[in-house]
Amino acid sequence: MVQAVHRAVQILRELASGGPRLGVTDLADRLGVAKPTVHALLRTLETEGLVSQDKDSAKYQLGPGLVQLGNSYLDTHELRTRSLTWADALAKRAGEAVWVGVLTGDHVLVVHHAFRPEGAVQILEVGASIPWNTCALGKAIAASLPAAERERLLTGERAVLTGASVTARNELEHQLTDVAGAGYAVEDQESAIGDAGIASPVFDRSGEVVGAIGIVGPVERMLGEPARQELAVAVRETARNLSRDLGAPRRAAYTPGP
Amino acid sequence: MVQAVHRAVQILRELASGGPRLGVTDLADRLGVAKPTVHALLRTLETEGLVSQDKDSAKYQLGPGLVQLGNSYLDTHELRTRSLTWADALAKRAGEAVWVGVLTGDHVLVVHHAFRPEGAVQILEVGASIPWNTCALGKAIAASLPAAERERLLTGERAVLTGASVTARNELEHQLTDVAGAGYAVEDQESAIGDAGIASPVFDRSGEVVGAIGIVGPVERMLGEPARQELAVAVRETARNLSRDLGAPRRAAYTPGP
Repeated sequence: MVQAVHRAVQILRELASGGPRLGVTDLADRLGVAKPTVHALLRTLETEGLVSQDKDSAKYQLGPGLVQLGNSYLDTHELRTRSLTWADALAKRAGEAVWVGVLTGDHVLVVHHAFRPEGAVQILEVGASIPWNTCALGKAIAASLPAAERERLLTGERAVLTGASVTARNELEHQLTDVAGAGYAVEDQESAIGDAGIASPVFDRSGEVVGAIGIVGPVERMLGEPARQELAVAVRETARNLSRDLGAPRRAAYTPGP
Repeated sequence: MVQAVHRAVQILRELASGGPRLGVTDLADRLGVAKPTVHALLRTLETEGLVSQDKDSAKYQLGPGLVQLGNSYLDTHELRTRSLTWADALAKRAGEAVWVGVLTGDHVLVVHHAFRPEGAVQILEVGASIPWNTCALGKAIAASLPAAERERLLTGERAVLTGASVTARNELEHQLTDVAGAGYAVEDQESAIGDAGIASPVFDRSGEVVGAIGIVGPVERMLGEPARQELAVAVRETARNLSRDLGAPRRAAYTPGP
């Protein structure tokens, strides 16, 4: 562990935490580090464009260099680049928005969002981070992980976002077994009231799960029959095609599950 | 300058440069730093989620933590958050895509992109980085900068992206004077063949330019009369309203220019 780098990232995370801009003293207090150390780190981060200082208040905020680096991650992310056309086709077929996500820690990071073909103004959700247990993408990935990694998720913190969020280990384990059997996962208003999701895991050439692709939309349109079955079939087929496109062996793409 | 942090950022930039994944030896060569140092930096960045290691090749790529940090920058960026509704309204009024950009170094970073209301598939350009002299956003900002900062741009590197890109200092100075007089800047296929742009500067409560907002679209729809004048009026009005929304003094918003 290189301590200066660790502290620099801590500074970025504090500035990312969504509060007001922070000064050197605020950051020194939060990190438990001497002010001259924080000042030197901030100057270096500012030179690199990763933080910027407000002229009036002399306080700090995140810098534009982070957007460029984040964009490079997305541009070079194989699952994301391969998913673009598959996501578009699925959005057209389903008439709903499509998300592609990867697991990072115990959250799903949305790396691609194909808008619903018709409809009102939509907010781009790329970069959104959702607790794994509250979304179909997260459950699709968790069901396909090696046992040790799944266990890490099941024993870790399980978030509660709505009254429908599932946190009981037993119930989540049951759900994951069902997901592995059916090849798709369902969210029923577990991350946001009124929203539902259906997602399937995506595998790469090593046969390991690399993420998930799925539909999100209002529960009324998503989970009534026959919509639910039709959407699930479309999602599962898309995930299989995307997996094959990524070089996944037939066995991994078609009979997922640990 | 904290050297470890500087080197960590150099590693991120090398990984962002768009080539294949890089190993410890590749990075040590490129940075001119000993392998154990690079290894320690990579391990720290990996722990923080800013890089990730490919299991098969043991090579490194950027990590998902960068997307979360980049997203936090965008979420907390006052120009961007204030611009959302103005950009939507301008896109509707103009029937074209709208970009909002900020100057970082000698490039314009696109921080918001409102899609054209109707039309074919559109690629989100948030995070794109465009040389200042090749786009209307960049010229709108440059024309409104304090003289010393404008001079830095005019004496720095001027990119050539198409045969229409303007690099001659005299011609750029003339253009910037016109921009300051008219309150808007025009790009005529200077960054991409077939594309045009019209943009106006945006000011904050200090009266300084903080970015620009503008329309981008095919040159055929954008720069013929009477479209060009109508679009320019719409862009300039939107930029003024957005500036006032950001607290800009009336004088700065309505009579821009250095």
